[in-house]
Amino acid sequence: MEDIYDLIIIGAGPAGITAAVYAARKKINCMVITKDIGGQAAWSGDIENYTGYQFIAGPELVAKFEEHLRKYSIVLKENEGASLVTKKENIVFVRTSKGSYRAKAAIIASGKKSRQLGIPGEQEFKNKGLTYCATCDGPLFAKKDVAVIGGGNSALDAALQLMRIAKRVYVINSTAGLSGDEVMREKVLESKIISVLNNAQVSAIEGEKFVTGIKIKGEAKEETLPVQGIFVEIGLMPNSDFAEGLAKNDFGEIKVDCHNRTNIEGIFAAGDVTDVPEKQIIIAAGEGAKASLSAFRYLAQHRF
Amino acid sequence: MEDIYDLIIIGAGPAGITAAVYAARKKINCMVITKDIGGQAAWSGDIENYTGYQFIAGPELVAKFEEHLRKYSIVLKENEGASLVTKKENIVFVRTSKGSYRAKAAIIASGKKSRQLGIPGEQEFKNKGLTYCATCDGPLFAKKDVAVIGGGNSALDAALQLMRIAKRVYVINSTAGLSGDEVMREKVLESKIISVLNNAQVSAIEGEKFVTGIKIKGEAKEETLPVQGIFVEIGLMPNSDFAEGLAKNDFGEIKVDCHNRTNIEGIFAAGDVTDVPEKQIIIAAGEGAKASLSAFRYLAQHRF
Repeated sequence: MEDIYDLIIIGAGPAGITAAVYAARKKINCMVITKDIGGQAAWSGDIENYTGYQFIAGPELVAKFEEHLRKYSIVLKENEGASLVTKKENIVFVRTSKGSYRAKAAIIASGKKSRQLGIPGEQEFKNKGLTYCATCDGPLFAKKDVAVIGGGNSALDAALQLMRIAKRVYVINSTAGLSGDEVMREKVLESKIISVLNNAQVSAIEGEKFVTGIKIKGEAKEETLPVQGIFVEIGLMPNSDFAEGLAKNDFGEIKVDCHNRTNIEGIFAAGDVTDVPEKQIIIAAGEGAKASLSAFRYLAQHRF
Repeated sequence: MEDIYDLIIIGAGPAGITAAVYAARKKINCMVITKDIGGQAAWSGDIENYTGYQFIAGPELVAKFEEHLRKYSIVLKENEGASLVTKKENIVFVRTSKGSYRAKAAIIASGKKSRQLGIPGEQEFKNKGLTYCATCDGPLFAKKDVAVIGGGNSALDAALQLMRIAKRVYVINSTAGLSGDEVMREKVLESKIISVLNNAQVSAIEGEKFVTGIKIKGEAKEETLPVQGIFVEIGLMPNSDFAEGLAKNDFGEIKVDCHNRTNIEGIFAAGDVTDVPEKQIIIAAGEGAKASLSAFRYLAQHRF
């Protein structure tokens, strides 16, 4: 067991990084524990709505965030995920895959993970043609036929990335029409590379060593679409299992008030792991700053 | 009276610009009415806590925001301030110095203006040595003696800007010690150019054609400090007078809920004009995005 930190931040996506920058500037003794740097922002293709950057790729924006974070002397534990966050007698305890830490306050900014399909073949062909990140893995599918499963913004984003790489992109949407931003919808529908299949349910992933096809049930018949790559974009689930005693909504998102306070005093939350309805990079960054300033005020107002 | 817009955004600081970018991407028929571009961000010296920009000057960040805004075909009314925002029978009416407009929804992101001293000489010497914006007017005082009135972040920021330009900088602080970020406080106290006067009350501005001195009452005696420039940094007041019927707190800030809704349905608010306690560029931008998405949802859910 090491010293007691003022603040432990869990996660280093836009919310966690911004919280850390604010903490560092307030000279709070702070540690950041994270599995990766950038979180979901790193999975994004083209970002056009982070104010100040007209147009930037997700990984590029993340590189700028990371540079910003590393400018300060913050204790940074990478490749380390929290397995338990709990509070006892005024002190927050954090257990991870690698150790245990104590702090006077904590900010949970652990973001979300991809929702799984739960169909035959999914586990078998994971990383063997089936992936949850078009930005990370898209380039592996040059001139191949691929399917994107989903019909919302992240599916559209994946399709728009893949149309520049793949030979043909099928968007397999379970509802009657695409959702997501109109600009992106238009671009998808204009593309000659992309075919949208509405009202289509995916029933199985097929393959041998690697993916060879995807079984789809349309309105009438069931068919197998021959593809070499499958990108699952059917939504996200919050990384909140480790947070003991925190109030969550039905989706597992941590409930916060307007000041990013959770139901446990001294534990704050920010970004996509919370029940703030809009999941956006600029919003997560703003929420991270708010959480950090709330934590600062909490630290100033209490004796430990 | 022109057509009915979907959305009128009042103000083009970080909150208003971000709201407009989000609206444009959702293809909302949107107009922005503003006195200036950038708002208070344009007054900032060095900004080190806008995530993604390690270090950027206020005017430079504003230039990037403006570029981002102008990328979209948004109707932009510049040099135009709102004089009345009110709602009648489901429609929001906006009156300005130049015309009247109608919209289905509005976002008020009109920010704050500088608080005035209210002492003899202030009105007389405004723009004749006395100013409220170190970033705008600092360069006019090269190698001169100047005073910054205030002791918080904006006063420290002004002093740190001016120490690179002026011969001597007095920080005239009415309390026992400086407030504001520790990093900035340290820099101010380390500087050989800056002298901090605590427990000092400003009682008058003196001069002939231009400022020649500032009258200060310390703990014991009253004295006149010879300076050629005076920078007033004693806080800000919300630009919210024009908003009719909106609930405000004791400071005149517009009350919003976590979704940036005001007490009047269809009128939203974001950024420093609201009662969100933290006044920060990254937070204002995040709040602008939230307000825009809330407005989008409101427009989708109602018939007009």
